[in-house]
Amino acid sequence: MKIEIIRQRVGSIRRQLRKKGIDCLILTKPVDVTYVTAFAGEDSWAAITKSAVYLITDSRYTEQAQKECVQTSIVERKGAIAGAAGTLVQRLRAVRTVAVEKSVSLGAFRDLKKSCGRPLKTVSGILEAQRSIKDTTERAAIEEAAEIAATALKNAARYFKQGIPENELAGIINLEMRKLGCTNGFETIVAFGANASRPHHKPTQRRLKQRDTILIDFGARCRGYCCDITRCVAIGKPTAEYRKAWEVVEKAQAAAIAVAKAGARLVDVDAAPRRVIRDSGYPVYGHGSGHGFGLEIHEIPFLKEDAKGRLQAGQIITIEPGIYLPGKLGVRVEDDILITEDGCQVLTHKCPHAPWRN
Amino acid sequence: MKIEIIRQRVGSIRRQLRKKGIDCLILTKPVDVTYVTAFAGEDSWAAITKSAVYLITDSRYTEQAQKECVQTSIVERKGAIAGAAGTLVQRLRAVRTVAVEKSVSLGAFRDLKKSCGRPLKTVSGILEAQRSIKDTTERAAIEEAAEIAATALKNAARYFKQGIPENELAGIINLEMRKLGCTNGFETIVAFGANASRPHHKPTQRRLKQRDTILIDFGARCRGYCCDITRCVAIGKPTAEYRKAWEVVEKAQAAAIAVAKAGARLVDVDAAPRRVIRDSGYPVYGHGSGHGFGLEIHEIPFLKEDAKGRLQAGQIITIEPGIYLPGKLGVRVEDDILITEDGCQVLTHKCPHAPWRN
Repeated sequence: MKIEIIRQRVGSIRRQLRKKGIDCLILTKPVDVTYVTAFAGEDSWAAITKSAVYLITDSRYTEQAQKECVQTSIVERKGAIAGAAGTLVQRLRAVRTVAVEKSVSLGAFRDLKKSCGRPLKTVSGILEAQRSIKDTTERAAIEEAAEIAATALKNAARYFKQGIPENELAGIINLEMRKLGCTNGFETIVAFGANASRPHHKPTQRRLKQRDTILIDFGARCRGYCCDITRCVAIGKPTAEYRKAWEVVEKAQAAAIAVAKAGARLVDVDAAPRRVIRDSGYPVYGHGSGHGFGLEIHEIPFLKEDAKGRLQAGQIITIEPGIYLPGKLGVRVEDDILITEDGCQVLTHKCPHAPWRN
Repeated sequence: MKIEIIRQRVGSIRRQLRKKGIDCLILTKPVDVTYVTAFAGEDSWAAITKSAVYLITDSRYTEQAQKECVQTSIVERKGAIAGAAGTLVQRLRAVRTVAVEKSVSLGAFRDLKKSCGRPLKTVSGILEAQRSIKDTTERAAIEEAAEIAATALKNAARYFKQGIPENELAGIINLEMRKLGCTNGFETIVAFGANASRPHHKPTQRRLKQRDTILIDFGARCRGYCCDITRCVAIGKPTAEYRKAWEVVEKAQAAAIAVAKAGARLVDVDAAPRRVIRDSGYPVYGHGSGHGFGLEIHEIPFLKEDAKGRLQAGQIITIEPGIYLPGKLGVRVEDDILITEDGCQVLTHKCPHAPWRN
């Protein structure tokens, strides 16, 4: 991680804090901690003041923190984390107003309030909003994740054979990503046949049949950043019903990609693929049409029917319409796009939509 | 999941609520929701009243919830989850006092407080304490996870070969668990040589050498429940230094297992292995000597130097002392034990401690 990138991130957060009259922001969410320190471990908090960034961690992670952290003072705690954060704040004479993000647990909030001996404000969305605009380091990591995911899926295709269980195929896809130096960014979904009608199906021992369909929702994680891809594969000749649903989903996705650009209202981008599916006589999916991702698999912005706000340049989101007919079939196509001033750029183009269909 | 088991769990929670004068407890933590409903999806809350258990979920999970849930009324939400929970509570005339666990996020707590239109109490530890005593269903799942993990490790041993990267070996172990119908219960740690001196090392592209050591910290997840095992393997003849550290850790672990029983103070069980390591002239590890687990990989009780309380019959915990010499070696041995009235029972006995050592 380049020092310059961390400095930019922290600088931008500091400007927000200055506006709000906050001297010290405590970050309790692991991904937020990673974002401002480059530390990739767990059970650690960060504190950002006007002049420094602190990582509050414990002896399990000290060696790792010394290696990974950029521009960060490492505070090794012995006792509970909220107590250690409070002690740190008390030591910092220049800090009068302390704040914490609303994602903190109620218990930790109360403990911190007690231990820091100062009024504790709450803020929301500062990190979320900044993390939604990906900087060059983040874009590069996501693009690499997308490329590795594409290769892994290609390599896993030789296991698309009669008899393999969903659960094992999911493990093979994960392993192929590890062979390429990544991990799976989230629990890989593999759903055969009608199992795909559950958008968040968990892989089972159901075995692939001679004529069958596969839905795979997966992504590699590369230097902390994931990608998020869904592909559908028909083994043998697909039924006319399946083919038709798949084509409608493709058209729906293209409709969203056509309108996605900086300044587009989230509701409009969400509505575009739904309209195609509705107009084709299919039931409209219950999930969102897409979402941001990065260090987390689900980040703002969320494309939903009640979403507020507009897309911004530099955001990276999924576009993932689907058709779900319980007991019959499930089809979803999901790609990752970078929002630009005048449109968007598909980052998952190296992963063909349906390369193994007959 | 048997109806009877869920009924017992909910019954026991209701007794706690009655004592505290609470008419409705809202559960926001996914594992707590699973524990009282058998629902295994995400983004869902549960509410327990005197006469019913509700699952507040959304359309992505309705089909799954109808299949999985036991003795639960399913409430399909359209909007935000806190709002939906508030609306439900308002509909329940007999509910006057509502409570939520302190693990709730501050933001969700505030939203719920607003939406439920009643004073919102906070409680802590009700679910945690009950979940720490494993019922028969839970014990059976953990024992099966332990058996599958043992078989998976045995099957993965043929890949302990010069040149394989840590990250790939981790993926192979995960895949072997999937082949047996499970998944990995948490991120598998594989650390070669001196990398094992970091207790929470993340697998890298470091390749296994001809004479090398492997530390593997892994566990299968079976019907929602994980196990947690660490094994060390020397490839080729281990150095005298490594062998000595390994033997001390073995002795340290045995010392903890010898004193673990219902009624034993957590600090005493924590101290027993530390003493063996200190007396042998090694630095004492910075992590706890063990911890509970089940639906989560880390649950109460925690064996720590400042722990309060005693072990209880029916708890299942790890015992995992280690020796870490940065730049040189790391050795940890971790087994899972069931606490009984007069001692304990090792559940991971099918996984030999060092079967591939020369």
